[in-house]
Amino acid sequence: MLRPTNQIVVIFGASGDLTYRKLLPALFDLYCQSALPDSFIILGVARSSMSHAAFCDKMKEGIEHFSNLVKKNESLIEPFLSRVDYLSIDTAGKTEYFKLKEKLLSIDKVYNTGGNYLFYLATPPSMYETIAQNLHAVDLHQEEAGKYFRRIIVEKPFGYDLASAVDLNKKLHLVFSEHQIYRIDHYLGKETVQNILVFRFSNGLFEPIWNRNFIHHVEITAAETLGVGSRGRYYEQAGAIRDMLQNHLMHLLALIAMEPPVLFEAQSLQNEMVKVLQALRPLDKESIENNIIRGQYTGARTNRGFLAAYREEKDVAPDSTTETFVAMKVFIDNWRWADVPFYIRTGKRLPSQLTEVIIHLKATPQALFKGQCTGPSCNKIILRIQPEEGIGMQFGLKSPGSGYNVKQVQMDFKYSELANTYIPSAYERLLLDAMHGDPALYIRSDAVEATWKFIDPLLKHIQTNKDFKLYGYPSCTWGPEEANQLIPEGWSEYPAYCSIEEEPKFTVLG
Amino acid sequence: MLRPTNQIVVIFGASGDLTYRKLLPALFDLYCQSALPDSFIILGVARSSMSHAAFCDKMKEGIEHFSNLVKKNESLIEPFLSRVDYLSIDTAGKTEYFKLKEKLLSIDKVYNTGGNYLFYLATPPSMYETIAQNLHAVDLHQEEAGKYFRRIIVEKPFGYDLASAVDLNKKLHLVFSEHQIYRIDHYLGKETVQNILVFRFSNGLFEPIWNRNFIHHVEITAAETLGVGSRGRYYEQAGAIRDMLQNHLMHLLALIAMEPPVLFEAQSLQNEMVKVLQALRPLDKESIENNIIRGQYTGARTNRGFLAAYREEKDVAPDSTTETFVAMKVFIDNWRWADVPFYIRTGKRLPSQLTEVIIHLKATPQALFKGQCTGPSCNKIILRIQPEEGIGMQFGLKSPGSGYNVKQVQMDFKYSELANTYIPSAYERLLLDAMHGDPALYIRSDAVEATWKFIDPLLKHIQTNKDFKLYGYPSCTWGPEEANQLIPEGWSEYPAYCSIEEEPKFTVLG
Repeated sequence: MLRPTNQIVVIFGASGDLTYRKLLPALFDLYCQSALPDSFIILGVARSSMSHAAFCDKMKEGIEHFSNLVKKNESLIEPFLSRVDYLSIDTAGKTEYFKLKEKLLSIDKVYNTGGNYLFYLATPPSMYETIAQNLHAVDLHQEEAGKYFRRIIVEKPFGYDLASAVDLNKKLHLVFSEHQIYRIDHYLGKETVQNILVFRFSNGLFEPIWNRNFIHHVEITAAETLGVGSRGRYYEQAGAIRDMLQNHLMHLLALIAMEPPVLFEAQSLQNEMVKVLQALRPLDKESIENNIIRGQYTGARTNRGFLAAYREEKDVAPDSTTETFVAMKVFIDNWRWADVPFYIRTGKRLPSQLTEVIIHLKATPQALFKGQCTGPSCNKIILRIQPEEGIGMQFGLKSPGSGYNVKQVQMDFKYSELANTYIPSAYERLLLDAMHGDPALYIRSDAVEATWKFIDPLLKHIQTNKDFKLYGYPSCTWGPEEANQLIPEGWSEYPAYCSIEEEPKFTVLG
Repeated sequence: MLRPTNQIVVIFGASGDLTYRKLLPALFDLYCQSALPDSFIILGVARSSMSHAAFCDKMKEGIEHFSNLVKKNESLIEPFLSRVDYLSIDTAGKTEYFKLKEKLLSIDKVYNTGGNYLFYLATPPSMYETIAQNLHAVDLHQEEAGKYFRRIIVEKPFGYDLASAVDLNKKLHLVFSEHQIYRIDHYLGKETVQNILVFRFSNGLFEPIWNRNFIHHVEITAAETLGVGSRGRYYEQAGAIRDMLQNHLMHLLALIAMEPPVLFEAQSLQNEMVKVLQALRPLDKESIENNIIRGQYTGARTNRGFLAAYREEKDVAPDSTTETFVAMKVFIDNWRWADVPFYIRTGKRLPSQLTEVIIHLKATPQALFKGQCTGPSCNKIILRIQPEEGIGMQFGLKSPGSGYNVKQVQMDFKYSELANTYIPSAYERLLLDAMHGDPALYIRSDAVEATWKFIDPLLKHIQTNKDFKLYGYPSCTWGPEEANQLIPEGWSEYPAYCSIEEEPKFTVLG
């Protein structure tokens, strides 16, 4: 495996959860695979005045809890942590950045990291602009082609609506060129999500039927059993639309629907992603009211105990109208997909925990066999994104015995069948790509603006039309009953992790 | 399950192996499933002067050895045998048939079988004409529509070449109408063979790619590990071409390649089968010499012991030039299949025991990924006819980890996954169809003539061109080395039941 150039990874927000649970464990796992540069330093930056030792202790704990490879590599923790450093500065204060610059220069000298800096902004979005400006103030943003690079990774949410996203792009572009900016969506780092492209574009078997001639509809479900937990403060501002729909689900949709890229490299790939996002049929008042259902979970007695309503969660307003569920029917107005509905749903406190894409093929032009499945759900291609990663296919088989009865059967490929194959975490993949300077799986500015442009009318509609309903759905149900009306064929059914132990009460909350 | 009308099943050649191993066990299995008529008699007819009791004893033994359902249904043997009768006549002697007629009439009276007779000719083919004529002589061939039926099932081989097949058809048609004649090919009774039609014509997923635009080539293998055994006398006359190619493999090919029938009933189905057989590109001198390889197994030392040469088998001439292996490349000259090669091979004493059809899809129009499989064998649809019945699919998956390497993986559906589903034997299915009067899975006269018409030039060429080679291949190899040259992409590889323990010697035998 080709290792990235020597570099310093600077993590802003290093005292936060993301660093502790995801970033350091992922970097450690890369280290275990000898995927990190020959020489590197990971520099945690945060306001907290923590000693270097205290920071390393905390990171060690995070690695022990969240790394995939730590069990067989305990002996690598210490050598890895010897490459972890910590700097306490007030990241809002411009002058503080001289300290940072000094620190980086001194690391460069000792560790031969050549001025290559990857800045990871694991901070609240409100800090993005400030940090960028402050880096600019001390000239840490400026790279020199062929000599050293400066890259910045920005976490979601990227903007709050179209205007703020456009504004944030503008602000970042004042400091960084687009090619230096890596907008992360960790969904794109998942093996099974990347495999959508390989599955589609490396097989003579599937690509020919991947269009409106043969596909009846596409169904995307991202279901969580958990509620909002301790993230009420963030979630109140976001809701399911900003938390899941605008980013993860739109990008998943783009990969499923995009045209084959000219080449398999960042620019061609992103060109195609943007094209399909730009082809989304714009949401108008009518389509919003007919094709989009918002819901919020309410309390319910289940076999997993009583599950509280969203409005009773910590840091949530008792009259909150934030949606924890959204289902929608969207169209892509291009030659490949005209009139093929894409049904998307995501929510918290649903009965299952999974992300899955189901391609429903059209029925045969004629039903030759008695009892043959003739609906649009007889032939399915199932892309299991998580947790039981795999590919499934449902098709008709002759039911053994006399006559010609047709029985729907399924065949599956499971990633767990791949012996001795390590499946890297999304953050591993994406961090490594950024260290290599490959933005293929990051979101380009025009793609971010395209998704916000699509979502914006919905956000405005919610704000201005108080009679656009927010339905209450009992925890451990599949969202509001109205969501079932969206899709005439019905949503696919999944094994339930929890079941409700009372007559479910569906309500209207706003 | 709708039961057939009351009837008498008359088996000529009742003292033979087919009756003992296949027909009576299949009829018993149907009986266990309550699939036989309310009232019926199975009348064995043969020259052997055997008592009724002796015949029943022998049939009981056959059932105990070869029935699928006997283990759970031992108590049904006696009631079943109470419906089995035996008549010893010289089937060549015309006057003997009065005895048969008398017997049938007396059974009709007692068992209310209404004059419905199904004659099964499990005799040497040389007897077909005689038996038909003798039945005619006593008017046992004549049915009356709406009142009673007379049907005749004829075993393979049906003819010896085109002329003899045409002649046999003519002779039978002097006595029976085409709709009374059931030419059996037990391959068509297999669940997995019938499923080819259901798989193709009930799935919106596969039919769109089932043509020359997407299929690169088709491979059909019917491999046997056994040698000719005790069947030398028959096999010397037949060879692999008449024993397997002209019937089983041609019919398999027809099901794979045929157009969708207008309706799923006998006539439409057979119309399409005939059409595709008639579209086979005729064999001329050049195509025979370039596209057909004949072989005969020779002795070899293997991990299963020394396996003798065909020429050393019982009832085989020491200088026999009968082929025990044939491989060929054929084309179907119609709109669906123009220029798509079909590769067919069958043989005895090969390393595996299986029948399998593999559809090789064309590669994608462009290879986007590094290391992507680009040959014509990256995407396969595998129809496993026997013994491990199922469907498989091979496709490219992203190899987990960095980059976009493509790995070929497979998913499978196995019939063994169908819990509690009984898979009937081929003879069960076909006997029941004939009892019901459904000829859909039997071979119509024009189909028989079409396959012989296709094969005939090859037979003539073998006869008249002594320099058309017969290659010797050591037992437990995949036939002559020259067969591997036929298919540029190579034949698929299979797990071997046996392996050769010496340097294989490939020879030319004639």
